Amino acid sequence: MHMTELIMKKRDGGEHDQAEIDFLVQGISDNSIPDYQLAAWTMAVYFRGMTKEETRRFTMAMAQSGKMMDLSSLPGPKADKHSTGGVGDKATPLVMALVAAAGIAVAKMSGRGLGHTGGTIDKFESIPGFRSTLATDEFMEQLRRIGAVVAGQSSDLARADKRLYALRDVTGTLASIPLIASSVMSKKIAAGADTIVLDVKCGSGAFMRDLESARELALSMVDIGRGLRRRVTAVISNMDEPLGWAVGNSLEMTEAIDILKGGGPGDVRELSLVLAEQILIMAGRKPQAARKELEALLDNGTALRKFEEMVAAQGGKIKLDVEGYNLPAATHTIDVLAAETGWVKRVDALKVGQLSMELGAGRQRLGDEIDASVGVVLQRKIGDRVESGERIAVIHARRGEDRTLRSSELLAAFEFTDYPVVPPPLVLDIIS
Amino acid sequence: MHMTELIMKKRDGGEHDQAEIDFLVQGISDNSIPDYQLAAWTMAVYFRGMTKEETRRFTMAMAQSGKMMDLSSLPGPKADKHSTGGVGDKATPLVMALVAAAGIAVAKMSGRGLGHTGGTIDKFESIPGFRSTLATDEFMEQLRRIGAVVAGQSSDLARADKRLYALRDVTGTLASIPLIASSVMSKKIAAGADTIVLDVKCGSGAFMRDLESARELALSMVDIGRGLRRRVTAVISNMDEPLGWAVGNSLEMTEAIDILKGGGPGDVRELSLVLAEQILIMAGRKPQAARKELEALLDNGTALRKFEEMVAAQGGKIKLDVEGYNLPAATHTIDVLAAETGWVKRVDALKVGQLSMELGAGRQRLGDEIDASVGVVLQRKIGDRVESGERIAVIHARRGEDRTLRSSELLAAFEFTDYPVVPPPLVLDIIS
Repeated sequence: MHMTELIMKKRDGGEHDQAEIDFLVQGISDNSIPDYQLAAWTMAVYFRGMTKEETRRFTMAMAQSGKMMDLSSLPGPKADKHSTGGVGDKATPLVMALVAAAGIAVAKMSGRGLGHTGGTIDKFESIPGFRSTLATDEFMEQLRRIGAVVAGQSSDLARADKRLYALRDVTGTLASIPLIASSVMSKKIAAGADTIVLDVKCGSGAFMRDLESARELALSMVDIGRGLRRRVTAVISNMDEPLGWAVGNSLEMTEAIDILKGGGPGDVRELSLVLAEQILIMAGRKPQAARKELEALLDNGTALRKFEEMVAAQGGKIKLDVEGYNLPAATHTIDVLAAETGWVKRVDALKVGQLSMELGAGRQRLGDEIDASVGVVLQRKIGDRVESGERIAVIHARRGEDRTLRSSELLAAFEFTDYPVVPPPLVLDIIS
Repeated sequence: MHMTELIMKKRDGGEHDQAEIDFLVQGISDNSIPDYQLAAWTMAVYFRGMTKEETRRFTMAMAQSGKMMDLSSLPGPKADKHSTGGVGDKATPLVMALVAAAGIAVAKMSGRGLGHTGGTIDKFESIPGFRSTLATDEFMEQLRRIGAVVAGQSSDLARADKRLYALRDVTGTLASIPLIASSVMSKKIAAGADTIVLDVKCGSGAFMRDLESARELALSMVDIGRGLRRRVTAVISNMDEPLGWAVGNSLEMTEAIDILKGGGPGDVRELSLVLAEQILIMAGRKPQAARKELEALLDNGTALRKFEEMVAAQGGKIKLDVEGYNLPAATHTIDVLAAETGWVKRVDALKVGQLSMELGAGRQRLGDEIDASVGVVLQRKIGDRVESGERIAVIHARRGEDRTLRSSELLAAFEFTDYPVVPPPLVLDIIS
């Protein structure tokens, strides 16, 4: 088989058969296909797409290109949750606590953040002492004992995807639905769960800017899962403004704990309940009962105790009765004041995410050091009334930031109007 | 400027401005753009194309990426002729002899053959003693003195095109009209001629399989030339069957001399006259007068003498009064006999070209040694009547060929019918 022929087949709109997919993924894994041929092929895929069958085959071959976790020794459904990446998204710890509290095992492998979106592992690691590198038997033991475990994604997982993703990043082929779908799903399949909820973010702060492409991606991932006999549901959620108030690692973890304690912003609570509910439904619960059960577990403190248990098992030291929960706090804060009176029309998630990254909360490049303590806490969001001069956000920063510049950068993420604004719906669609 | 952004711009259908074209061609020349980004960009160009303006800019930048020949010290028009590559195409020596005999200087830089199509330089080099490597002053002196010179294309010419072409070859992006057009025209522009006739081959033995794409390529190249103030005319000619009877280097050179002596196949004579006529017309001659003048130069031996003069100037030793003209001859011949009675419907040029290459007349890979003596001489072509058992072609081969296999391979290029067939038109269109 020659790679040039495979490129031309895809270029002309053809569908790769199993042997061709195996050749491709093998060649990606062992570097026998050079970068330039892989780049030409991915651009051809960008234009021509992949059929459902082809995407499924490609995903499975990518999953099998590395280590495959086997969770089958544990009885019952094994759940996983994935977000396509947003700003201020701290739903993972909440969903894990809720689902585990409801008696369903949840095993999460997660990557680190890059660019304006945060990474779940970075958020957990803002907890002093928290260990995210776990040996396989340790991972399995905690999953069996507590029903919830989160670990940094092993570099052995879906090995072919690593090379392909890095190449797509520098050749303008990230925005291909079948390539995104297979990249996400290959890691989910390899991580071993059979019950997967996907949070597909949609809006200015997300990779999918419009509902149409978010739906297309969600459908593709749900279809891959179904073809590979996994239960998969995708929730499409709004990412025009940040989720919740806090953006930045320890600030987001604080907010997650606030919610587990009964406080915090309503949108994060609601999205976490919706995501957890989808897992319970896939696991066989009735929809209305599932929702009631989850609300009770949140309100009666069971979810909080499950969260504490999981964090403690991984060495994390939080103090729930102390302000800030023993999480690192920034040395400096900068108040951001409204420049006009009216209603908030927009809070650009991308701008907030980028500012937070620049403050040190995220990585511009792979391997950059991050600062767990810095970030942004919004106090007004879309639909809120503001008075000129009142505080609408607080920036948490290190020494040496230009206060005026940072303040004006965050202010630029806000747009105000002189008429009332209805906040956008949080959940845009659910696809299963 | 970032290459990833340029890839995405082209991917999304954008037009590169002058600064972007300069960045691209500079990066191709100095390797600052890596292969994988160049491969993704060429695939994006394959799908999105280039505007006329963009193609012109790209061509000029590619031409300027290497040595630019300056023929301006010579008065009057300086002609060049290019073929997009066919099988049995020996029009170049004929067009050069005719045009130079008509008093118009013709300076030809030419490449070597690759795959099933032959190269002009290989054909000239079948003449014992012929030198195709000429220093610039030697080239200019011969052009001034004789009015005709042919040389192997300097590796300095359109340097960026070399890397780009090699990469396109292994990434499935050869078949892009703007990339073909700019590749051809950048070398023509760099070679310095101001009056260029292009023979765009169309049919099963050519790169352009159908008239529509051949027209598109011809239009693109004529437009580039016009934009860069060159006179350019494209003749679209049939390449469903080989041109003439002979395929293979010395066999083709023999046929060219036969025509200069008043014999040889009619199609090669006709196409050479048409191509030369277009140059004369661009140089200011009236169409009908040009044709008459060229026929006279062919019939009265002036073109033959001009050819002799050019070959002798470059060291070539032909003997016009000896059979075979002192050109190398194969040691073995294999007769190919018709297996049925009827009319020839097809002689597949691609199959004949590939057989000739396998016999040793052409290169499978760059740098392969070739044998000037081997090839094929057809004795029947489309429209001819054949009787079962009669000889329809002769294979000229080295010792050790499997005679039955080779004979059946050539026979497989023929298709017969039991009804008369009208040969296809030779010249399909002329675009200026």
